[in-house]
Amino acid sequence: MQHSTFLDKQVLVTGGAGFIGSNLAIRLRDLGARVTVADAMVPAHGGNRLHLESLGPAVAVLQEPLERMSDDLAACVAAADTIFHLAVQGCHWDSMEEPLKDLHYNCSATLALLEACRRHNPRATLVFASTRQVYGSPRALPVDEGHPLQPVDVNGIHKIAAEHYHLLYHRVHRLPVTIARLTNTYGPRMRIRDARQTFLGLWIRQALEGQPFDVWDGRQRRDFNYVDDVVDALLKMATHPQAIGKVYNLGGDRVYSLRQAAETLTELTGTLHVIRAFPADRKAIDIGDYHASYEAIRSQLGWSPSTTFREGLAAALAYFRAHAHLFQP
Amino acid sequence: MQHSTFLDKQVLVTGGAGFIGSNLAIRLRDLGARVTVADAMVPAHGGNRLHLESLGPAVAVLQEPLERMSDDLAACVAAADTIFHLAVQGCHWDSMEEPLKDLHYNCSATLALLEACRRHNPRATLVFASTRQVYGSPRALPVDEGHPLQPVDVNGIHKIAAEHYHLLYHRVHRLPVTIARLTNTYGPRMRIRDARQTFLGLWIRQALEGQPFDVWDGRQRRDFNYVDDVVDALLKMATHPQAIGKVYNLGGDRVYSLRQAAETLTELTGTLHVIRAFPADRKAIDIGDYHASYEAIRSQLGWSPSTTFREGLAAALAYFRAHAHLFQP
Repeated sequence: MQHSTFLDKQVLVTGGAGFIGSNLAIRLRDLGARVTVADAMVPAHGGNRLHLESLGPAVAVLQEPLERMSDDLAACVAAADTIFHLAVQGCHWDSMEEPLKDLHYNCSATLALLEACRRHNPRATLVFASTRQVYGSPRALPVDEGHPLQPVDVNGIHKIAAEHYHLLYHRVHRLPVTIARLTNTYGPRMRIRDARQTFLGLWIRQALEGQPFDVWDGRQRRDFNYVDDVVDALLKMATHPQAIGKVYNLGGDRVYSLRQAAETLTELTGTLHVIRAFPADRKAIDIGDYHASYEAIRSQLGWSPSTTFREGLAAALAYFRAHAHLFQP
Repeated sequence: MQHSTFLDKQVLVTGGAGFIGSNLAIRLRDLGARVTVADAMVPAHGGNRLHLESLGPAVAVLQEPLERMSDDLAACVAAADTIFHLAVQGCHWDSMEEPLKDLHYNCSATLALLEACRRHNPRATLVFASTRQVYGSPRALPVDEGHPLQPVDVNGIHKIAAEHYHLLYHRVHRLPVTIARLTNTYGPRMRIRDARQTFLGLWIRQALEGQPFDVWDGRQRRDFNYVDDVVDALLKMATHPQAIGKVYNLGGDRVYSLRQAAETLTELTGTLHVIRAFPADRKAIDIGDYHASYEAIRSQLGWSPSTTFREGLAAALAYFRAHAHLFQP
C-alpha cells in the first residue's frame, strides 16, 4: 500500500481504544489519517484510554456505544472515508454466561453501525474484524473460508450473524464491505488482566509477574498473529477494491501446540508453566486444533504474516514491561 | 403418535395465538393436553385472541413478550413437559426495514426462552419452528438440510442464529431440542390482512373480496404445506426421541409455480389475478425457486404431507368465509 493512501483521510475505528483497534488507530495516525475512535469502554472488553495516550489530542475519542448511535457518532459515520469495525465482544466464556449481553454488544451494535452507513454514508469502505470462532471445531485442517460455519458458543453464533449483516448490506444496499476472520492475535495493548482476549493474555501477565501459568492440556494446535501483521491485513483490505464483498482468513506463520507456545514464553521470561487437565465446562466450548489457510488473502492482496511467534512474543513482553501501568487489574 | 401421548401433559406454545401456534394449541387441546399460550400479540405479527375463541377458558393465554420473561412465564416454562417455540417475527420485508426490531423479536426472545429452560426446566422437550429462509437462494433443488445457509435477508440471518442457539443449548446444556424448517405454510388462521405471512395470505383475502390479486412474475416454483400437516410434523418431532438434536425440512406434496398456485385460487374463487413485474426492491431479497427435500423426516419419523394444495386451499377458503370477522384490517 502506498503511504499516501490514508493521508488526510477521515477514518473511524470502532473499538479503537481496544487491543487491535488502538494499534490500528496509532498506525493510521502515523500514515496521516484523521482518526476518530468510538469505544464504549465496557470494563470487561478491551477498551482503555491509556492505549491511545501516545497520540494525545491527535485522535478524537467518542466514548459511546454504537447501538445508541448518537448524533455525534452518526456524524462521524457520515464523514468517514473508511470505517474499521472492531467494537465487539469476543469472550467465548462470557457469551455463554450472559448470552443476551453478547447479542447486544455484537449484533445490536453491528446493525446500528450498518444502518447508520446505509442512511448517512453508503460509500464508506467498511472493514469488519470477525473471528475464526465462526467455524467451530474444524472438520479438516487447514481451515479455508469455505469451511462450514458450526459455532460452538454464543459468541460464534453472533459473529456469524454480524458477518451475514455485512454481506447482506453489501449485496442489497451496495455498501463496500470486507471481512477478516482473525485467529489468535497477540501483542502490545492486548488485554492481559484476564483471559478474555485469548489465554495468551493471562499467560503473559502471569509470566511477567513470575507466577507459573496454567496450560489446559496443551496438545491443541493453533496459529497466532502478531498484531502488527493483523493491522497490515486490515489496511490492505481497506484499500484493495478486489477485497470488497469478500471474507478472508488471517493465519499464523506456522502451527504451534499450546505446549510449544508455553515453552517459548517460559524461555523468554524464565517463568515456568503447569500442564493441567482441561476443565469440563470450558472443554464443552473448545474448538480443538485449529489453523487457518490464508491463501486467499495472500494470493489476492499479497498479505502474509511477517512476524514469528517468538519475535512477536518478545516484542509484546518488552511492551508490557515498559507499560506496566496498563495492565493493573 | 398415540393419542394418549399428550393427555394431561403441560404444553407451552409460544406464539400460540398466531397462525400455526393457534392451530397447534387447538390440536393439543383436542389431544387432552393442558395448554398455555404465550403471545405478545405484536400487531404486525400473527397473534389474535380470536384464533383461540373456540377453546374458551380451556387454554390459558399469557400476553407477554418472551424477552421480558416474567415470573408467570418462567413458571410456565418450569412446569412444561413440552414447549413449542413459534413466537417469531417472520416477515422478510419488515426485517430489512427494521432490522433491530427483527433482532429483538427473534434472537432476544429465543435466547430468553432458552435461558429460562436452562435455569428452570432443562428436561422439557423444545420444538422450534424455523424456516426455509435460512437457505437463501437454493444452489440446487430440492434443498436438503445439508444445503449451505446463505440468507438473503435479515430475518434469515436471525433465524440461523435462533437455530444455532437451540443446537448449542442442546449440545452444551443438554436441552432436548428439535428444529423444523418450514416452507410456505397456509390454512385457517393465517394472517390474510397483508402479505406478512407469505404472499398467499394477501392473495386469499383479495380473492375472497373479489378483488383481482397481483402475482409478481409467477414463474417462481415453490412448495406449500397445509397447516394441519405442519402441526402433525411438530407433534411427531415432539414425541420421537430420535428427533432430538436434529433439524428437519418440511415440504409440500409437489412443486407449483406461483402462476399455477394463482390459477388454483382463481378456479376456487372465480377471482382473477394479474401477472406483474417483480418490484426491484423485493426482488433483491427474493430466493427464486425453492422446494424442499423432506426425506429426513419422512424416513426417520414417518411424516409426509397428506393434503394437496387444492384441498388445503379449499379448506382455508371455507374457514375464512365462515370467519370473516377475523380478517378485518
